[in-house]
Amino acid sequence: MKLTIDRLRLLKVLNTVSIAIGQKSPTPAFLNFKFEMNSDSLAITGSNSDMTIQSVLPLKEGDNDIILSFIPGSTLISSKFLLEIIRKLEGNWVTIEVIDDVIAKISDEKSDFKLNSMRVEDYPDLDLDVEGDCVEFKADDFKKIVTQTAFAASTKEVRPVLTAINVKADGEQMEFTATDSFRLSKKLHRVEGHHEFEVNIPVKTMSEVAKLVENNNVKMIVSDRKVVFQYDTTSVYSRLINGDFPKTSRMIPDSYPYVLQVGADTFRNAISRVSLLAIERENIVKVVITRDELEISSKSDQIGSANEKISDFRYAGERFEISFNYNYVNEAIGAAQSDDVILSFAGEMTAFRVTAPNDETIVQIITPVRSYY
Amino acid sequence: MKLTIDRLRLLKVLNTVSIAIGQKSPTPAFLNFKFEMNSDSLAITGSNSDMTIQSVLPLKEGDNDIILSFIPGSTLISSKFLLEIIRKLEGNWVTIEVIDDVIAKISDEKSDFKLNSMRVEDYPDLDLDVEGDCVEFKADDFKKIVTQTAFAASTKEVRPVLTAINVKADGEQMEFTATDSFRLSKKLHRVEGHHEFEVNIPVKTMSEVAKLVENNNVKMIVSDRKVVFQYDTTSVYSRLINGDFPKTSRMIPDSYPYVLQVGADTFRNAISRVSLLAIERENIVKVVITRDELEISSKSDQIGSANEKISDFRYAGERFEISFNYNYVNEAIGAAQSDDVILSFAGEMTAFRVTAPNDETIVQIITPVRSYY
Repeated sequence: MKLTIDRLRLLKVLNTVSIAIGQKSPTPAFLNFKFEMNSDSLAITGSNSDMTIQSVLPLKEGDNDIILSFIPGSTLISSKFLLEIIRKLEGNWVTIEVIDDVIAKISDEKSDFKLNSMRVEDYPDLDLDVEGDCVEFKADDFKKIVTQTAFAASTKEVRPVLTAINVKADGEQMEFTATDSFRLSKKLHRVEGHHEFEVNIPVKTMSEVAKLVENNNVKMIVSDRKVVFQYDTTSVYSRLINGDFPKTSRMIPDSYPYVLQVGADTFRNAISRVSLLAIERENIVKVVITRDELEISSKSDQIGSANEKISDFRYAGERFEISFNYNYVNEAIGAAQSDDVILSFAGEMTAFRVTAPNDETIVQIITPVRSYY
Repeated sequence: MKLTIDRLRLLKVLNTVSIAIGQKSPTPAFLNFKFEMNSDSLAITGSNSDMTIQSVLPLKEGDNDIILSFIPGSTLISSKFLLEIIRKLEGNWVTIEVIDDVIAKISDEKSDFKLNSMRVEDYPDLDLDVEGDCVEFKADDFKKIVTQTAFAASTKEVRPVLTAINVKADGEQMEFTATDSFRLSKKLHRVEGHHEFEVNIPVKTMSEVAKLVENNNVKMIVSDRKVVFQYDTTSVYSRLINGDFPKTSRMIPDSYPYVLQVGADTFRNAISRVSLLAIERENIVKVVITRDELEISSKSDQIGSANEKISDFRYAGERFEISFNYNYVNEAIGAAQSDDVILSFAGEMTAFRVTAPNDETIVQIITPVRSYY
């Protein structure tokens, strides 16, 4: 294999593909980029077995040459070293050549690197079939779906299914749900066509794809075994997470006798300040609401006490008090992406809801905690 | 003690003073700001016993009120919590009031914090006398002196004196030297007046003062026991480091039969690329110089080899080769702050010199390493 390629175009693809490549791997071949130069394109693949990213570079894009000259073939090249070398070279064009099957020579006019390489036969077979139910999203819609749900997924591997976003399609209606069992975020999104599936997609995959897509539309192709995201000339393949996602509808109360509407920034700033003194109690803050007064407080025997009053709010209900983890409410309000938020309470020890006025597509549920004073 | 103060002005002072306050301390009082409100100013002090910073805020600066109203007194307030609270409050003015000697109440119109506080009597006595030989620097000169020397000091506590910058005054001539015993950076600087001293100032103190001074002149007042830096209304007190600084003049060769002049960026970029493949050998790169060719290389049995050629350079001397740690040469060239650098070699296993053309004030010495191939 030999090819001379636009350095910055190659660098961009390597940065994308390297996202799937880990720092360590029980399979050493997975620490490499796989290069496959065919008669009309170069495919570069990276994988950690859970996630695989493949980008395909054509010889030309419009009138611009991407690959100047080439001899077909394939090789593995250490991702860590190749990425650094391509980043630090100064030439506009770089030549990559395989010598004796086991050396990858990377050069421009000034520089000349010879990297010891593994044989391409050592790369594991990957399932890169693309088949299944295909749903298409605008880039901004997909990014928003992920921003509004991913934070609520679990970061702990104890219950793997909670590290996924549950994606359910029922006709044109799609539902994305993430929960770490203490709070939940659910996003509704309408798509074209008729779809029928339910899968658990690793939150890491969803987040990486959301970062990658830029302004392209993105296709999500769901089968029983895996999901494939496609945008531009890049495909991201990911395993699904097995197991039953919790029946989250049970977590959502039916009626809310206490409803507070308040400015998102006003409320977040106030609970953020009060939570400063609650660090030894897991950032638990207490809210007391009456028709006339919205008061937020925290108390620690060791450190001291904090108290905030908000005067600009709307409230329907009896006097009510509740305590919660500041981080959960802060993240929920952020995800609501709205100037005002509505907090709807069912009882002092019952999960409460965070929503945005005039936006039916996003619902968040948070479990309160017992108040200690 | 009670005072109402301009919040952002207070925040700036707390940020400055907190630099001297650690995260942990065997003396719990040192985790506090000490507030002392007198009839005409507020002094705020932070210390970790090695370094103490005190800033004094007047009641007014020009026509602008800084402190609106006050009752004299003093108190200790937790630095960690006060800094966060003052940062997150929204009001322009904040009131700090001591209640029953042991509670500090911090409030603005909306927020109200009560912090449990230590008694001011628990704060250790500090030596805040300012006496000794006083040298004055322009802010930019002081920053440059630190930038050009501090990086060469040791970060290891094995030989404490090497974690200092050695500061020698001999009449109008001052000499700042830092070395970790593998490389050395020496900066000459001419000042006004006649001074005569030699002290070892912790590199941490020098670096923090360089960051703090902004555009003010800074005074350095040196006594046997300590050094005090003063700018604006802030004083930084620091212990000195005992012990004899190495006689660095012995490390500097007398004559250099091999002299290379090369573009600083060209050389740094080339050695930076080549060092990529030398990570398992402590970033050791080899340079071979003849009148016609400047070649830089590295080699690793495991990873591979790298080779760079530079065509634009000037060289006087026989064919010469030497190996060195990339980081040392990279940092030395950076500190030279010059478009071109001059590398002067005395022999393959002898320390070499990095200087800038037309700048006699900065000299750097680097120990080479044995080449393995």
